[in-house]
Amino acid sequence: MPKTHVTQFTVEFGDCDPAQIVFYPNFFRWMDAASLHFFAAAGIPPWHKLDGEEGIIGTPLVDAHARFLAPATYGDRIEIETWVEEWRKKSFVMKHVIRRGGTVLVEGKEVRVFARHHPEDPGRIEALTPPEMIRKRLE
Amino acid sequence: MPKTHVTQFTVEFGDCDPAQIVFYPNFFRWMDAASLHFFAAAGIPPWHKLDGEEGIIGTPLVDAHARFLAPATYGDRIEIETWVEEWRKKSFVMKHVIRRGGTVLVEGKEVRVFARHHPEDPGRIEALTPPEMIRKRLE
Amino acid sequence: MPKTHVTQFTVEFGDCDPAQIVFYPNFFRWMDAASLHFFAAAGIPPWHKLDGEEGIIGTPLVDAHARFLAPATYGDRIEIETWVEEWRKKSFVMKHVIRRGGTVLVEGKEVRVFARHHPEDPGRIEALTPPEMIRKRLE
Amino acid sequence: MPKTHVTQFTVEFGDCDPAQIVFYPNFFRWMDAASLHFFAAAGIPPWHKLDGEEGIIGTPLVDAHARFLAPATYGDRIEIETWVEEWRKKSFVMKHVIRRGGTVLVEGKEVRVFARHHPEDPGRIEALTPPEMIRKRLE
Repeated sequence: MPKTHVTQFTVEFGDCDPAQIVFYPNFFRWMDAASLHFFAAAGIPPWHKLDGEEGIIGTPLVDAHARFLAPATYGDRIEIETWVEEWRKKSFVMKHVIRRGGTVLVEGKEVRVFARHHPEDPGRIEALTPPEMIRKRLE
Repeated sequence: MPKTHVTQFTVEFGDCDPAQIVFYPNFFRWMDAASLHFFAAAGIPPWHKLDGEEGIIGTPLVDAHARFLAPATYGDRIEIETWVEEWRKKSFVMKHVIRRGGTVLVEGKEVRVFARHHPEDPGRIEALTPPEMIRKRLE
Repeated sequence: MPKTHVTQFTVEFGDCDPAQIVFYPNFFRWMDAASLHFFAAAGIPPWHKLDGEEGIIGTPLVDAHARFLAPATYGDRIEIETWVEEWRKKSFVMKHVIRRGGTVLVEGKEVRVFARHHPEDPGRIEALTPPEMIRKRLE
Repeated sequence: MPKTHVTQFTVEFGDCDPAQIVFYPNFFRWMDAASLHFFAAAGIPPWHKLDGEEGIIGTPLVDAHARFLAPATYGDRIEIETWVEEWRKKSFVMKHVIRRGGTVLVEGKEVRVFARHHPEDPGRIEALTPPEMIRKRLE
């Protein structure tokens, strides 16, 4: 069983569109935040502190996906359960399940890489093999 | 060759995050807008005008996906090329390619349904077979 | 002493701009949400439930103002203290003080009206004298 | 007559809230963008290029204000006319008038400072007297 983390959000009036439901890009906004809260809860230092050691400057997205199963509206309390579903050679897959009470609203995935400045050209970034130290804390 | 539509956006400072690049949910925000501009350009009346006739109240998302190939930052002029990639029995797939000049930044898909109020329970909505009149205008 | 309400938010990575600090329109987003949470906490029913009785359809803004005293960044926990500072003939003034711990970050005001559909022209809205029942609950 | 600049935006579906009108913080988002487009159009180099010479790292807000005179909704084309209304000792006032056709929707002000890293404590920033070179280009 992988380590999971739950982040809670309240759907606000301004998160909803003229159809009275959550404007869908906000679900990705919440998934991104949930990933970062998961990293923080697992004790991973902020990237700028890792910069000296590992050279990691962040975990940019290479792929994002969501299936929308039920809508949400303002006043709803939602929670996002987050875990690492898969470790790949140069990337990793975050899985998110967004629920309101017992109802699954959204199933999402984010594929991220650990990025650092390219050693020969600091203007470019390159994907790193996920560092063992970080991987252990997230599993 | 399907009908395509191009929508242009400028990446603003406030669309970017502390990593100096577009905060990724904004790409979905622009894809959603590109879909609606495509519908308008194809001569499809606003949904509330279709309500009487076809009963359509909108085209909610059931699935969204993006592959992020290159980052963008503020000041960039981007364009989104949009078309219907596939018609399914009860849904349709919008394809979006986001470019800055000759560089593809993002490839995205949105799966949408034509929704109307359920005839027996107006509090629920149901997916319709994509209406022929609308389909013709988008092909 | 007027009745006050405190709403808490976490500043997320995506709420910040390339200068690493909160993109300022988000402070207005949080003030708007704080106003609505204040109304709900004071026991005011959702507007659509008041529609039959009082005809109120919402509390649109006529004026918004903020003074930015100190920046905030991602990971910060902020709280917004909210109260009605003034009742005017056809509007009312929400005051918001946003703090991180003991530091005041923002002082804001929103001037709102109680709006209903114009009785002779439902396409227009008109401002109402703030209803006594609602005023009592917010004082 | 001060120099003015006009920036155009389209109000998108996702910019509007369940009341079918623009969610008001978006007007501040557009004003911020209009300020930066005004600076660029006046030939002011990006701040990071000024950093060496003038030490300016940006123009953070100290105050923002808007009066909302008429609502806007999706599909509306709006334009923002922007100019510097006042130069103060350590700050300057941007004025914005947002119109749809001949109708004024919003009148806004942003008070900004030219900021640089404090010479004795790079972790702090300080407000500069607006540099003559920049002032001339904006007047």
